[in-house]
Amino acid sequence: MYIGIDLGGTNIAAGLVDEKGRIIRQDSVRTLKERPTDEIVKDMADLSKKLIADEGLKISDIRAIGIGCPGTINVETGEIVYANNIPMEHYMMADKLREFIDLPVYIDNDANCAALGEYAVNGQGAKAFVLVTLGTGVGGGVVLDGKVFHGFNGAAGELGHATLICGGKKCTCGKEGCLEVYASATALIEQTKEAIGKDPDGVMAHIAEAEGEITGCTAFEAMKQGDEYGKAVVLQYARYLADGIVSIENIFQPEIIAVGGGVSNAGEALFGPVREYVNRTGYNKFMPKTKIVKAVLGNDAGIIGAAMVARNGIGR
Amino acid sequence: MYIGIDLGGTNIAAGLVDEKGRIIRQDSVRTLKERPTDEIVKDMADLSKKLIADEGLKISDIRAIGIGCPGTINVETGEIVYANNIPMEHYMMADKLREFIDLPVYIDNDANCAALGEYAVNGQGAKAFVLVTLGTGVGGGVVLDGKVFHGFNGAAGELGHATLICGGKKCTCGKEGCLEVYASATALIEQTKEAIGKDPDGVMAHIAEAEGEITGCTAFEAMKQGDEYGKAVVLQYARYLADGIVSIENIFQPEIIAVGGGVSNAGEALFGPVREYVNRTGYNKFMPKTKIVKAVLGNDAGIIGAAMVARNGIGR
Repeated sequence: MYIGIDLGGTNIAAGLVDEKGRIIRQDSVRTLKERPTDEIVKDMADLSKKLIADEGLKISDIRAIGIGCPGTINVETGEIVYANNIPMEHYMMADKLREFIDLPVYIDNDANCAALGEYAVNGQGAKAFVLVTLGTGVGGGVVLDGKVFHGFNGAAGELGHATLICGGKKCTCGKEGCLEVYASATALIEQTKEAIGKDPDGVMAHIAEAEGEITGCTAFEAMKQGDEYGKAVVLQYARYLADGIVSIENIFQPEIIAVGGGVSNAGEALFGPVREYVNRTGYNKFMPKTKIVKAVLGNDAGIIGAAMVARNGIGR
Repeated sequence: MYIGIDLGGTNIAAGLVDEKGRIIRQDSVRTLKERPTDEIVKDMADLSKKLIADEGLKISDIRAIGIGCPGTINVETGEIVYANNIPMEHYMMADKLREFIDLPVYIDNDANCAALGEYAVNGQGAKAFVLVTLGTGVGGGVVLDGKVFHGFNGAAGELGHATLICGGKKCTCGKEGCLEVYASATALIEQTKEAIGKDPDGVMAHIAEAEGEITGCTAFEAMKQGDEYGKAVVLQYARYLADGIVSIENIFQPEIIAVGGGVSNAGEALFGPVREYVNRTGYNKFMPKTKIVKAVLGNDAGIIGAAMVARNGIGR
């Protein structure tokens, strides 16, 4: 049994997770990220102890703790090198948690944890597996032979910051034209806004008005109602995403590319055109092809993935 | 000792290569690719036997033969699934060569061989190493933990067919906007032609006239002579290449990205602006950074890499 902790800007979510990546019990507390980080880490330990006690277990029943953290992580030393969302810099997270609870601690980036969690549940033992998450940004992670691919410095797998349009729109990362600028949920909302600006009395405008806001669903809903403007937004967005995915496929040839995040809930309205484009334009014409599937885990990916980081950490 | 064979559309080049990737002796014959493939393979065996005899060795002194082939390879079965340059389809290359010479035979794509050869000589034992070759197309290969990264189907590492400009110029692969369309030597020559069209009596036009053709060197030579048009071509080309390289860096975070092919001979005139852009825009701001270096092997990469494919094959 492992403990997986998903350290977010709002909540600390933790779970008891078995060898196969099933959550046995979970719980959460507020992060309250403005306070000293040591206090946050003490709460992570207390939450872990509570989970163990609530399940009627002892600390010795747990093999290791894994933590998924935002930011740049040194997975070798357990240091949070830099995080933006929860202000931390050169913080020895793993060592600190061990001061409060006597267990091996392993740590990885939250996007990598999500990829590993999704792989554990949805990866069918793939040699190469990629998760692409469509959220505020485009996150992701690459799992090779069951382990997160880190590159030489721990910072690999930033799929959202591969270029989609050289010289295109500015990204928050400082580069121009990143996949994230065109294929994130944020980008879809912006593309929908622009389309509404050109058709201010159209179907999308009415949907947004009824819902009180423009969301990642607005264009999909309009398309379902037969609106050509909505359809155009969806197809352009799908093209951006598909072009990013075909690049990932040409580079990695993974068995599976799983796509998660809120936008993925659009289902076949999104996956249909994406698959069509990828199958038509992928470089590999002669060997078995990558499957493009919807990610299944949602919010639990972080906890499960963190636990799998612990499992892999113990195993190395 | 290994034999590495670089099977090209014009020549079959082969070499005796030691464990460290040094060529002890090499030789070549014409491919004559229009003849039956079995005859080509017999010549590959004869050339191998000649190398062994010329060096005063016996077949039993050789541990294995590696072959680098163009096209789509099934590295598990030794089959050439499809090749365009030398017409072959579903050809059991490894089995056929073994009919003529009794040694283990391993086979990989020629671009992957080049990457593995470059890694053996220039890779400094990197955990992650990428070769990008600027030629007719943009080739490349990814070496992880000393082995070619193949994905699940053998077809991974097509770095030249990652998108650089979504919806951009048509690529020979069928997709639009591939890195290859903007950053190959062919693309540079086209970009130079376009610039000469706008400045038909300028420095580049005169250089091309004196040399009898427009080459990948024309713009670099003009820039050296102080020509602003030449400089503009070089900087735009460097930007395309750099944008592709920064994507590779954000995805793989390799210790080293080696850049080869004729264009790389431009040296610092190319590598200077490329490194500046990559260092400024790379996502990783806090961890050790990828080194971008010139590939060192040139044409020998194919022979050495094929021999290293044999070495890794024996070792697996």
